[in-house]
Parts: sequence; structure tokens; C-alpha cells
Amino acid sequence: MEPLSNETRERLRAVSTATLSTLLFKRGLRNTWLHAVRRMSAAKRNMVGEAFTLRNIPCREDLDQVSAFENPDHPQRKAFDTVPAGHVLVIDCRADTRAASGGGILTTRLQVRGAAGLVSDGCLRDSDEIGAMDFPVYCAGPASPLNLSRHHAVDFNVPIACGGVAVYPGDVVAGDADGVVIIPRHLAEEVAREALPMEEFERFVTAEVQRGQPLIGTYPPTPEVRARYTEWMKKQG
Amino acid sequence: MEPLSNETRERLRAVSTATLSTLLFKRGLRNTWLHAVRRMSAAKRNMVGEAFTLRNIPCREDLDQVSAFENPDHPQRKAFDTVPAGHVLVIDCRADTRAASGGGILTTRLQVRGAAGLVSDGCLRDSDEIGAMDFPVYCAGPASPLNLSRHHAVDFNVPIACGGVAVYPGDVVAGDADGVVIIPRHLAEEVAREALPMEEFERFVTAEVQRGQPLIGTYPPTPEVRARYTEWMKKQG
Amino acid sequence: MEPLSNETRERLRAVSTATLSTLLFKRGLRNTWLHAVRRMSAAKRNMVGEAFTLRNIPCREDLDQVSAFENPDHPQRKAFDTVPAGHVLVIDCRADTRAASGGGILTTRLQVRGAAGLVSDGCLRDSDEIGAMDFPVYCAGPASPLNLSRHHAVDFNVPIACGGVAVYPGDVVAGDADGVVIIPRHLAEEVAREALPMEEFERFVTAEVQRGQPLIGTYPPTPEVRARYTEWMKKQG
Amino acid sequence: MEPLSNETRERLRAVSTATLSTLLFKRGLRNTWLHAVRRMSAAKRNMVGEAFTLRNIPCREDLDQVSAFENPDHPQRKAFDTVPAGHVLVIDCRADTRAASGGGILTTRLQVRGAAGLVSDGCLRDSDEIGAMDFPVYCAGPASPLNLSRHHAVDFNVPIACGGVAVYPGDVVAGDADGVVIIPRHLAEEVAREALPMEEFERFVTAEVQRGQPLIGTYPPTPEVRARYTEWMKKQG
Amino acid sequence: MEPLSNETRERLRAVSTATLSTLLFKRGLRNTWLHAVRRMSAAKRNMVGEAFTLRNIPCREDLDQVSAFENPDHPQRKAFDTVPAGHVLVIDCRADTRAASGGGILTTRLQVRGAAGLVSDGCLRDSDEIGAMDFPVYCAGPASPLNLSRHHAVDFNVPIACGGVAVYPGDVVAGDADGVVIIPRHLAEEVAREALPMEEFERFVTAEVQRGQPLIGTYPPTPEVRARYTEWMKKQG
Amino acid sequence: MEPLSNETRERLRAVSTATLSTLLFKRGLRNTWLHAVRRMSAAKRNMVGEAFTLRNIPCREDLDQVSAFENPDHPQRKAFDTVPAGHVLVIDCRADTRAASGGGILTTRLQVRGAAGLVSDGCLRDSDEIGAMDFPVYCAGPASPLNLSRHHAVDFNVPIACGGVAVYPGDVVAGDADGVVIIPRHLAEEVAREALPMEEFERFVTAEVQRGQPLIGTYPPTPEVRARYTEWMKKQG
Repeated sequence: MEPLSNETRERLRAVSTATLSTLLFKRGLRNTWLHAVRRMSAAKRNMVGEAFTLRNIPCREDLDQVSAFENPDHPQRKAFDTVPAGHVLVIDCRADTRAASGGGILTTRLQVRGAAGLVSDGCLRDSDEIGAMDFPVYCAGPASPLNLSRHHAVDFNVPIACGGVAVYPGDVVAGDADGVVIIPRHLAEEVAREALPMEEFERFVTAEVQRGQPLIGTYPPTPEVRARYTEWMKKQG
Repeated sequence: MEPLSNETRERLRAVSTATLSTLLFKRGLRNTWLHAVRRMSAAKRNMVGEAFTLRNIPCREDLDQVSAFENPDHPQRKAFDTVPAGHVLVIDCRADTRAASGGGILTTRLQVRGAAGLVSDGCLRDSDEIGAMDFPVYCAGPASPLNLSRHHAVDFNVPIACGGVAVYPGDVVAGDADGVVIIPRHLAEEVAREALPMEEFERFVTAEVQRGQPLIGTYPPTPEVRARYTEWMKKQG
Repeated sequence: MEPLSNETRERLRAVSTATLSTLLFKRGLRNTWLHAVRRMSAAKRNMVGEAFTLRNIPCREDLDQVSAFENPDHPQRKAFDTVPAGHVLVIDCRADTRAASGGGILTTRLQVRGAAGLVSDGCLRDSDEIGAMDFPVYCAGPASPLNLSRHHAVDFNVPIACGGVAVYPGDVVAGDADGVVIIPRHLAEEVAREALPMEEFERFVTAEVQRGQPLIGTYPPTPEVRARYTEWMKKQG
Repeated sequence: MEPLSNETRERLRAVSTATLSTLLFKRGLRNTWLHAVRRMSAAKRNMVGEAFTLRNIPCREDLDQVSAFENPDHPQRKAFDTVPAGHVLVIDCRADTRAASGGGILTTRLQVRGAAGLVSDGCLRDSDEIGAMDFPVYCAGPASPLNLSRHHAVDFNVPIACGGVAVYPGDVVAGDADGVVIIPRHLAEEVAREALPMEEFERFVTAEVQRGQPLIGTYPPTPEVRARYTEWMKKQG
Repeated sequence: MEPLSNETRERLRAVSTATLSTLLFKRGLRNTWLHAVRRMSAAKRNMVGEAFTLRNIPCREDLDQVSAFENPDHPQRKAFDTVPAGHVLVIDCRADTRAASGGGILTTRLQVRGAAGLVSDGCLRDSDEIGAMDFPVYCAGPASPLNLSRHHAVDFNVPIACGGVAVYPGDVVAGDADGVVIIPRHLAEEVAREALPMEEFERFVTAEVQRGQPLIGTYPPTPEVRARYTEWMKKQG
Repeated sequence: MEPLSNETRERLRAVSTATLSTLLFKRGLRNTWLHAVRRMSAAKRNMVGEAFTLRNIPCREDLDQVSAFENPDHPQRKAFDTVPAGHVLVIDCRADTRAASGGGILTTRLQVRGAAGLVSDGCLRDSDEIGAMDFPVYCAGPASPLNLSRHHAVDFNVPIACGGVAVYPGDVVAGDADGVVIIPRHLAEEVAREALPMEEFERFVTAEVQRGQPLIGTYPPTPEVRARYTEWMKKQG
């Protein structure tokens, strides 16, 4: 799989997840937004990057003791040490909100590696520290308990579920204030190309609505309104 | 049904939903607050207006394609284009939090029409934009996917469920930081009249508690405390 | 039971609930963090205090009328009037999020009494007012309806459930941005002693990670890294 | 809308809801099965009939007293008195399982009218009596409380949600041991035609698997297996 | 509190929980049926008895080891050894369905003591054995794990929550195929007196409906139908 | 990993999952029972076998069409064709109850292969057919829709979650009327050895309780009762 082009990356970063999910909906994909996952970090810029995944199953008391981290191949630690620059680490916690799937130290590691973000359908600890970071982080909320109290990291870079959505390694992960959307890798380029014009048109619609035009006839537009849009575009330059 | 008088509207706007729900409780109404619906917009002033409703049922893939909006009578678009000034649009999404029931453009349309607010037990997209608007908006949270990915708008201005509460067209909808309360239309005037004195008394109680008085004997008051309240009222003027 | 020493209180206040829950995990306690309970107040300092509990069962319409508060022994009012200075009032609402378990007046009463905080797995009303208080308050969120619309306060200072965790009177309740952790009373001193050195080490780890060190070998540390930590400690003084 | 032909009705009655939902899935409809709705009655034969709907919203204490039934147009009573022969009454209870949406008397009324069945995503009372009836009934389970304790019947023969699925009046409702599937009216005939051959082929597959054939190559079949099926069909006659 | 009279006990045993919950509804009590609690035992006769309660909070790993049962005052064991004849043991498990709150041996103990039944909003183990007993048992379903894996029995014969309903010691607990209803002690006699005539009338209504009469006019009855009922009663003798 | 010995297999088959979960609890394992998974098949004998796992993630509309089964390596089909004799196929459906994870044909394939059972935390279709089979099947209930409408089978014989419990390939899966318990492979032999004597003792306790002995002193036994048990054992032979 070729890396995502910088052009596509930039285009995706310039648009909203609302627009992206609509473009995926038009292609028949209705389940692309991660349920119950919200922005924790202060980073207000949009997040875009390829998915690098980490999978958890429920913990078992005899296996999941603090000593487990002494294993130099512990999948959680290894995943955080391995995620490539420009990628988003996406963690499958089975939407269990009773423990953290990481904290300040692990998030810092991602930031230092040049990762594009962190997404989990579980919780995170050190939420105050993460909340202040200029690094995109999305999760189910804060929680104090360490991952081992609910989770057993089992493997990484395999297809996972996150927030009720399938995430395949290499899929493009986009995040903004509305949450996180997963774009199947093979659709990323075409969706990126269509998104900017669509948002441009919506800026026109917003202006029309602000000056009192009704939704019906404007959104979607009648041929007359479409013509006015062409005019408007010219004026905008 | 006569429109809500300006006097009642002002009285309701001056009090909290906590007070209103207690007054309804005293009349035997225990289920008046919308569950899992919270303020999304920056508008800090209280919301008050008559309910104008919109009802959704689950989407069906063959009916709910983007082309559905080309229908000039599409109930969602039509409802947003129809809600009268001073009214609150209340949307029944069956508390489904997996899609947006509207976004920035539709909310702008309401604001331009002079509506009093927007309430949904589903989600909204463009949450950043809505969050910055000086227009009261309450919903279950942000979500990227468009309404068609979960909802089919079916009719409007019919009795609905929202947040687990019955909402009849014309009921009075009140919102503040604690959420949204539905006041049956025929109780609005009397509840509005009782609310202000009740809050005045609670300001006295707060002052008493702040100077070290116990709850018991003060809230509710003994005859002595009630007498002191009369004194206090005189001093307040 | 002896009161919590000031030394222990101070030590606990200086550390995070993440650290505390890990130390309890090491002792075999996996369920110490209150699920779905989050900070409502502006107070950013950590909360620490002994638990004083209040238990609710579901309301019954004939018993739970507003007149119930005229009972001078009403358990809710009495609990708020009784909680000793330095204690945290912890309320069992069976995680029911459809009503408030208190509001501004009751919270003010706690503050005036010198209580250390308020915790409920139900909601609270007057959230704007409470949100502005410099007094630690944690709950399931805002809600307008008064407690009687869902709850019947039945007794206090008995063992309860709160947020899915057992809380015994006298247990130590610690809160920060990640939420609330319950420390069994007999473990409070030893956990307090271990917590500060553990956080000191994590500050070293953070510094290491920030300068590009991998997690593996650093967290937990190899003998070499542990030696470097000893050096680092000396430099810090 | 023309009534469902007897031929289609018979064909649908002869096949399983599993087959029907697969045929709808092939047409892009993924959400056709009513969630959390199961068979309550002893009637083991499959249920097939057009949908006649009844919609409930949450009750309100002042409106929903026992005296409400004295209204000669009470929508619940009227719906049960109106459902045509051959139709299935489908009730929208917002999946609320805390009250009954009907009981023995109302179910008997349906049976006497020649209705094809009763479906609710709420509960039913008199479950022992209904369980013994030779009349197809599907619901969320038994519950003692009368409908008014949670529900307000508001209108009938409008599009509704039931078990998370859109139900339009006239849609075809099919039920067996696996539950209830909704077939959009315009697809009923073609789905009915395809279903029988599909089940015939699955009987062949079952026979193949029983004699030790693997799934792969058999289900779906390779050309050789398909040829063997043609042989098998001839033998069956 | 006087014991329940045999007459009241017999009357309650002869009627359904549907009837009882309607009579309580008429008195303003809308929440009397235990949610998600169903009959596990083969005993088909109705259950009636005064409530004897047992309260659980969440377990704590250091306290809730198997050795806890060596305590001669262990509240769970003591409650089962203490429940008086004719009473129903009602267990508060916070509706947690992940463990058993008892099993075959404990249920046998109740039966031997002459108890009237067992109710839990948690699960029970040895469900096969209990299912075969001629002793009324109601719970949330079967589960293998022992109570200590989720629960800590803390006290008994105190007011509790069970299935979302308040249960006070001495309340009357009635159970049939529709589930379990709690009758406040002071209402038991009058409700028992009204129940039989109400069910008699419903048998008449059923007969009317079976011969083709509509619901409207019959249920509730017009004066003419009421007159016919008087006739019918005479014929029945 | 050595195969499970026939002796251990027989011992486990002779005891209840209640006993097994208690023995695991004594070893510190509190989460071994699959939540919300119940017996669907008529097979009343206990199920015992090593786990062979299948993992699903959420479906994606472009990948999960019926044509997907034409892939000769489709993981679902391949898993059913591969599970060894004496093993239990355990399917991870993320506890999603909106679709079937298999049906009559696939279950028949398992039976023909000599598998020991089928377990899923999703649903199954053809529940009538499966319910009649003499083959142990446990799942979340019946559902009509095919797996592709919710699930994408992604790999097999990897560690999974099922019913909220970690399942490693080779773990021992035991099922009876109370549900399914997972025994870590390395504990299977010792747990099997301890289980029979424990159940023998409980038969003695049952006899004691049936003749009127209290729980306290009997269960657990005082030294005197333990002595009586030794006598009882001798009599039993």
C-alpha cells in the first residue's frame, strides 16, 4: 500500500468529518463514524492519518499483573513504540469505559514519534495533561484505572472494531470537533477531491440562508440557485 | 390555542428549569425533563418557546438516499422552513446517538426565522459552528453522519417523544444549563406565576445557609424562618 | 476509627487518582474508580476526604411528595447537615441519571460545614452555580428534576454502592480530573506513602520519553535506566 | 395499494424469516429484523400479514388516567377494533419494556377479527393466556403494568418505528421462531417468488453437509455441486 | 405491623399481577412491577407473601473471599436462615446480571423454612435444579458465578431497591407469569378486596369479545353493557 | 499444547459450571462466565471441549456482500470447516445481538465434524432447527439476519473476547443450564480433580438442609458437620 499523498492529506485536513461521512454515505457506507468517541485534547486542528491499530481483549487476573509490562514484547508498549510518523494509533477497547487504555506518558511517546493522533473507544488517564497537549486525542472520556484492570493487549496492526466501526490498518482516520470518521483506504483520494468543492458550495448555502433564503430550493439547489452559485463562485475568485 | 403571552414568556425566561420541574412535580408530573439532552450552543440565556415538532423513524436504505432532499416536501427541510418565530423546534430521534439530526446550515435557518431554539434527542453535526452561535441549541452531542444514515423524517407538528418525554405541539419548552423541561401548555401561565416567588425564597435560603444556618428548619422553613423571610423581603425592597 | 492524619491527607492530595488506582490494583483491588462520575465544579485542586454516605432507593409516589422535607429527620437533609468537616458526602443514586440528588443550596451547606467534597452517581441541579463554586463536586451530570422524582433517601453512614464501587463510611475518597477513586480506609496510609515516589519516577520517565527514549526499557525501566533515574534524582535535589 | 395476493401470502408463510432477511439484504436492506422482539404465543405456524400500525408516545400523568379509555376514540382501543382481517397489528412502544401494550382481552379481539398477528416492541400482560393462544404474538416479553403507566396511544396507521425498524402501513410482516422481519410492500411479491427455490437449495446443502461435505465448495456451490443439485432436484421430483 | 390475614393472602393469590398493578395505578402508583425479573421455577401457582429483604453492594476483592462465609453472621446466610414462614426473600443485586445471588442449596433452605418465595434482581445458579422445584422463584436469569464475584451482602430487612422498585420490609410481594409486583403494606387489604370483582368483570368482557363485541363500549362498558354484566353475573350464580 | 485428557474431559462433564466458576474464583479469577449467552439447543448434557475461536469485526457494506462467501478462504466458512473434533467453536460477535453468526447448516457441519459445541455472544438463525438438535449450542438468542448484515469474519484461532471474557485457543469451554464458563488451559486438570469432591459435599449439604439444618454451621461446615459428612460418605459407599 502506497503512503497517503501529501496532497490528499492536506485536502482531508481542510474539510470536516461531516462532509467526509456524507461522501462515504453516497458510496453506500453508512457506518463510518466512531460512536461515543470524542475529542479530549486541546488540539483544534483536524486530525488526518493512516490507521495503525492495537487490539485488546478482556484482562485475566493471572496474566494481567503489573509485571506483564516487563515483557519486552508487550503489545501495548510495542504498538506505541512502533506507530509510524503520520499515522493515527487506533485502539480497540470493546467500548469498555471502565479503564484507561493509555495516559500521559504513552501519548507523549506518540507525539515525539510524529504520529498524527490517538483514538480509543476506551478511556484515557491523565486527562488534564492530555487535554493541554497540542496533539489530537479522541477517546470515550477520562478514567483513572490502568489498562490492565480491564484490558489485555493482544496484537497490533490487525483489523479491529473501534466505536462500532471496522478499522483496517492503513484506512484513513479523520477527526474534528464532531468526532472521528474512518475512510477506507481505496476511497481516500477520491473523497478528498470531492470534499473541498462540496464545502465551498455549503458556504454559499450558508450565505443564502443567512440572507433569508429557505432551505427548500437552496439545499439542494434548484437550477436557478445553482446558477447563482456559479456567479457567487466567480465573485469569490 | 392562543400564543404564549409575552409576560409568561418573560417570567419563564427569568427562572431555572429546576424550579419549573419542581412546580410541575407538585402537580403530579414527574417526567418533564429530557433525558440525555444537553446544551451545545454558547447561548447562556434561558430558552423559552412553544414546541414545534419533527418526527423521525428509522431510515430505510432504498428511501433514504441523498436524492430524497430533492423532494420539495421533505419533512425535515419543510419543518425547518416552517417553524414560527418564538417557537422551539423539537426533534424526535428515538434517542439514537449515531447520526446528526441537523447541522450548521439548518440551525442558521432557524435563527434567521426568529425561532426560540432547537432541541433534539439525537445528535447534531458542525458542533463547533453551532457551539459558537448565540442561539439556544440542545441535543445528545455531536456526530458527523447525516440524518439519512439513521433517520427518516416522516411528519411534523404531531405529538412526539423526545428524551423520554411526551411533547405536544404548543407545549412550552424551557432550557438552561441543567437541560430542557417540557411544560404542558395549559399549565404554563400558572407555573410562570409561581416560579419567581419560589426562586426569591431560595435566594433567601441560600443567604441563610451561607451564614451557617442548617437545612433543617430553613428549607423548608419553620414559622420563625418564614417570618424572617418576610423581614428579609422588606429589606430587599 | 482514627481520623485520617494530616500527613496522609496532604500526600494523597498531591498525587493523581491514576497513581492511586494503580497502587490499589497492585494490592488486588481492580474496581476502585467510580464509573460515569465526573467533575462538575470549577475546583481544580484534588479532593481528599473520608466518606460519609447517603443511600437512596427508588421513590414511591405516596411517600415522596414535597411535604416529605417537613420531616425534621429527612435522611437527605439530615445527611447534608451532619457530614463532618474534612469528609466527602458520597450519595448512592443507583446510577439513575433522571433526577438531581441535590443542588446549589445543599452544596453550599456542605461547603459552609467544611466538607471536603460531594460525590453522587446521580445528577445535580443548579449545575451553573455548582460549576462556578470552588468546592469539589463530582456527579453523573446536570438534571433539573428534584430528587423526589426518582429517589427516596433512606439512611446514611452505611456501606453503599456508588458508580459501581463499594463505599464504606470512613473510606478515603480521592478525586481529580480523571474522576473519583475509593481507597479502603486500612490502605490509605501505605498507599499515600508509595504514591509520591511513584509519581516522581513517572516525571523522570516523561522527561526520557520527551527526549526520544522508547517506552520499552524505560517504562518499566531496565537496570541501566533505573541507574540513570538515581542520577536524575540527585540532580533534581 | 392492492391487497397482498393469496399466492404471495402462501409463499411467504412457507419460508423462514432467515431466508426473507437474506433476500432483502441482497437488495441493500440491512435493517429489516425487529430487535428484541420474540414469539410469545404457542402458535408455531409462520405469521404473514400486512402491517396495521399503532403509535405510542410517553404517558403524561394528567392525560393518562384509567378514565382515558372512556374516550370512544381512544387510539389504542380503536386500533384493535379496526385492524382488518389478514393484517398484523404492529405497535411502537419505543422499545420500552416497563409496561404492557396490551393483554389477553385485546389479543382475543384481534383473533376474533381475523387478524394475522400482533407485534409490539413493548411488553404484553396476561402472558400465560396469550402463550396458550393459537394466534401469532410477538413482543419484548411479559409485564404486568397497564399501557397507561408508560404509554400514550396517539395515532394509528402511520409510519412507525418498531424494534428499531421502519414499519409503513401495508408493509408485509413475517414472523417465525427467529422473530419478525418487515418486507417493504413493493418487494413482497418478488421476494416471495425467490424464497422457495432458495430454501430448496438449502435443503440440498443440509443433506450434503450431513453426509460430510465441507461448507467451502458447497455453500455457495461450485459448478460441480450446482450440477449435483440439479440431479438432486430431479430425484426429489 | 400485623401479619397479613389469611383472607387477604388468599384473595391476592387468586388474582393476577396485571390486576394488582392496575389497582395500584389507580391509586397513583406507577412503578410497582420489578423490571427484568422473571419466573425461573416450575411453580405455576401465584406467589404471595410479605417482603423480607437482603441488600448487596459491590464486592471488594479483599473482603469477599470464600472464607467470608465462615463468619457466623454473614448477612446472606443469615437472611436465608431467618426469613419467616409465609415471607418472600427479596434480594437487591443492583440489577447486576453477572453473578448468582444464590443457588439450589439456599433456595432449598427457604422452601424448608416455609417461605413463600424468592425474588432477586440478580441471577441464580443451579437453574436446572431451581427450575424443577415447586417453589416460586423469580430472578434476572441463570448465572454460574457465586455471589462473592460481584456482590457483598451487607444487611437485611432494610428498605431496598429491586428491579427498579422500592421494597420495604413487610410490603406484599405478588408474582405470576407476568412477573412480580410490590404492594405497599397499607394498601394490601383494600387492593385484595377490589381485585376479585375486577377480574370477574374481565371474564365477562372476554366472553363478550369472544362473541364479537368491540372493545369500545365494552371495555370500559357503556351503561347497557354494564346492565348486561349484571345479568351475566346472575346467570353465573 | 497437549490435548485435554479423556479423564479430565469426563470429570468436567460430570460437574456444573457453578462449581467450576467457584474453583476458578478461589484461584483469583472472577470473570470466567460468558455474560448474556444462554443454551439454545435441546442437548441437556454438559458441554466440554477446547476452544477454537472465530473473530468478527463490524461489517463494511462494500466488503460484506453475499459474494464474499465465494472466497474459498472466507474465515467464517473456513473456521466451521476446520474446528477439530472435541473442540468448541467460540465466536466473538462483540455481543452484537442484531444478526446471526451462523445457522442450521453451519451448526450441522460442526456436529458432523465431531465438534463438542458452538458458542457465540451474537445470535443464531434457524433457532427452531438448532433448538431441536442434540448438539450443545449457546448464544445470545435467535435472530433472522445473516452474519454479513453486522459482522465481518476476520481471523480464527486467535485470542478473542466472548460474552465479556477472554478466550484463548485451547482454553477449556464448559457449558450447562447456567451458561458457559472458560477455564484457562493450565488450570483445567486441577480444577477437574477438585470439582467432583466439592459437588459430593454439596449433595450432603443439600440433604442436611432438606432435613431442616440451617445454612450457618452447615455451609461451610463446622468441624462436627464435617465429621458427619465423613460418616455420610461412608454410608454412600
